[in-house]
Amino acid sequence: MDDLRARDGVAMDYMATFGAAIERLHDEGRYRVFIDILRNKGNYPNARCFGQRALSRPVTVWCSNDYLAMGQHPAVIAAMEEALHDVGAGSGGTRNIGGNTHYHVALEAELADLHGKESALLFTSGYVSNEATLATLGKLLPGCIIFSDELNHASMIAGIRNAGCERRIFRHNDMAHLEELLAAADPAAPKLIAFESVYSMEGDVAPIAAICDLADRFGALTYLDEVHAVGMYGERGGGISERDGVADRLTIIEGTLAKAIGVMGGYIAADRLITDVIRSYAPGFIFTTSLSPVLAAGALASVRHLKGSSIERECQQQAAADLKAKFAAADLPVMSSTTHIVPLLIGDAITAKAVSDALLQDYGLYVQPINFPTVPRGTERLRFTPGPTHDAAMIDTLVAAVSEVLGRAPLRLAA
Amino acid sequence: MDDLRARDGVAMDYMATFGAAIERLHDEGRYRVFIDILRNKGNYPNARCFGQRALSRPVTVWCSNDYLAMGQHPAVIAAMEEALHDVGAGSGGTRNIGGNTHYHVALEAELADLHGKESALLFTSGYVSNEATLATLGKLLPGCIIFSDELNHASMIAGIRNAGCERRIFRHNDMAHLEELLAAADPAAPKLIAFESVYSMEGDVAPIAAICDLADRFGALTYLDEVHAVGMYGERGGGISERDGVADRLTIIEGTLAKAIGVMGGYIAADRLITDVIRSYAPGFIFTTSLSPVLAAGALASVRHLKGSSIERECQQQAAADLKAKFAAADLPVMSSTTHIVPLLIGDAITAKAVSDALLQDYGLYVQPINFPTVPRGTERLRFTPGPTHDAAMIDTLVAAVSEVLGRAPLRLAA
Repeated sequence: MDDLRARDGVAMDYMATFGAAIERLHDEGRYRVFIDILRNKGNYPNARCFGQRALSRPVTVWCSNDYLAMGQHPAVIAAMEEALHDVGAGSGGTRNIGGNTHYHVALEAELADLHGKESALLFTSGYVSNEATLATLGKLLPGCIIFSDELNHASMIAGIRNAGCERRIFRHNDMAHLEELLAAADPAAPKLIAFESVYSMEGDVAPIAAICDLADRFGALTYLDEVHAVGMYGERGGGISERDGVADRLTIIEGTLAKAIGVMGGYIAADRLITDVIRSYAPGFIFTTSLSPVLAAGALASVRHLKGSSIERECQQQAAADLKAKFAAADLPVMSSTTHIVPLLIGDAITAKAVSDALLQDYGLYVQPINFPTVPRGTERLRFTPGPTHDAAMIDTLVAAVSEVLGRAPLRLAA
Repeated sequence: MDDLRARDGVAMDYMATFGAAIERLHDEGRYRVFIDILRNKGNYPNARCFGQRALSRPVTVWCSNDYLAMGQHPAVIAAMEEALHDVGAGSGGTRNIGGNTHYHVALEAELADLHGKESALLFTSGYVSNEATLATLGKLLPGCIIFSDELNHASMIAGIRNAGCERRIFRHNDMAHLEELLAAADPAAPKLIAFESVYSMEGDVAPIAAICDLADRFGALTYLDEVHAVGMYGERGGGISERDGVADRLTIIEGTLAKAIGVMGGYIAADRLITDVIRSYAPGFIFTTSLSPVLAAGALASVRHLKGSSIERECQQQAAADLKAKFAAADLPVMSSTTHIVPLLIGDAITAKAVSDALLQDYGLYVQPINFPTVPRGTERLRFTPGPTHDAAMIDTLVAAVSEVLGRAPLRLAA
């Protein structure tokens, strides 16, 4: 590559351009260093960390999205092991060309049932399900206008942008603003309202019923991302839409198999005609190897387990309530959240990283700093995700450590 | 949804629009019906098929992209089982937030070594690696022009489109046309040439060295998709770029873990600064749960095995040569191919599907028809992927069956 810099004066200095892009991240304190960890199965949230300072040290994980520790559940492990020995590692093809297995078909039926929809469609990730579905819907509906919550996830934003249709951003969970935008739009235009149930960095919840009311009034389709709620809310883990009894009012419910379900992959659930049209037209679905049957088998076992067991959900809510109460009692800047997500406001990227580093190095507590562009600048935070396996003693240890580290003088922190 | 059709006269008839989109596919004979199969581990290409006509019947798979049957290899299965019991099912987070494990780090090092590059970066699929990398490169290089082979895969096209920069399509593997387009472009503009090594539906190979010569002359970066070559060409399975001794001349080599490697996932290999800038700026990398550590462990074992073992590659090439020779000897319309891919021209979607259906129903031979938009209309085909586990008797059975079915009158075929 180096020789591209000077040749014939025709080539731009590619490496200098890339280097400058990396420098900007260092300057802003938001260059990401991945922490190299291995969880200890059967003993989560305990893990091992491989760092520069030691070959391997024990850590307690406080920022996993394996919210209910289902990635460690014996039923999930057993199902994956069985599939591994029954059919092998990968699917070997796209869903259409050799990569459709009985596990995929059974999992889609289970997910459709979970959300009370006619059918479901699997994707390789929640990111891809959002991107592929929204982009394809927008292309299939000429003149469509997409109404999007300002805090929607990057994958929804990518899908809406790639749809190439008009979009209107409404202020976060602001029904008056959404109504105003809907009323101002051409009544004859197709419309889609795209939003999330649980916003993952804030921990607040959308007013789903009120959004459905507006959708009914203005003849809009609705697209709800439930990735931070599936498995964790509702009597069978169907998400906030199940808890609120409004799943049947939504056009499309999107979810993930990689968070509370504990495995990997994403999906949508909807009327059969809608999943059929996405299945048939979305490049991100058609032209990719299907989910490994091993993952599909694990997700199937996990979804089935969580439909019949509420103890994981109850313990998670208890742990989250405890942590919030103890942060507040210790006068720490815990942000308001009505869910299992516990964000602690820090306010700048450099301090957030310094606090995170100190917790890991001095206490073996792993919580990743959350910086721009995941959250707006000035709202950098630590985001804790207590789950059913975080006990009261772990919570006390965490609160004491965070108090000590936040109490340090800024200079000592940065060191 | 039905009630959306009439309400207040404001809503368009969404379901009618979606229904019409599906009808178009039926009319053209290219509505896709997924065949529900389970491979029998240890006995590939034998599988079971679940259809309407029978609960389960044995089939021989002729269209898998698990090209070397590594998805069934004992070393791969053992590695996945070990990881499953060591750390659990899913990674639980993005690479930056809790989802980075030792398996990911080790696999990236192994892939970098495979291609002789400084570093590698994992994605959840080959589709995502192409889309995310090309879109991000285009955005990072203001004024960039992307030169793209007309037969590039849908995922590269998606990435190039989402980059939002200028693109020039050159005729398939046509060096004179590529040179003409490069010469006509602004000499000062950043340039990227994006192409594949093995084109998966044709089975032909790009002149990589000639493309690198042009890139050098015009100061362009090069992006090579090796998904249908990794594991199968070169002394260690490094792809056509290894076989041709030109890996060091390419800026970025992209590959998949879901075809010859037998698992799932995608990656790029390049200079460290380039993987770092993609890692730091690509939404499709940043905002998605990382590959399951179980998959990473399996891919690691597979790549390591194929670095040291050539028997799978040799047997695959032998099976492909046999099948091509026998198709030709039987006067069947086998298309020219210089690789392991054996396409048989049919020429229209309805016949291609009818032939495929007859082979499955009457002979238990599974080969999927390939229709538009995967290939141009009028070039619909069957695409066979013989591998090391397809023996001479299986090939004879296949050739006889295809001869019989193609010899049927059109009316009997369509019935």
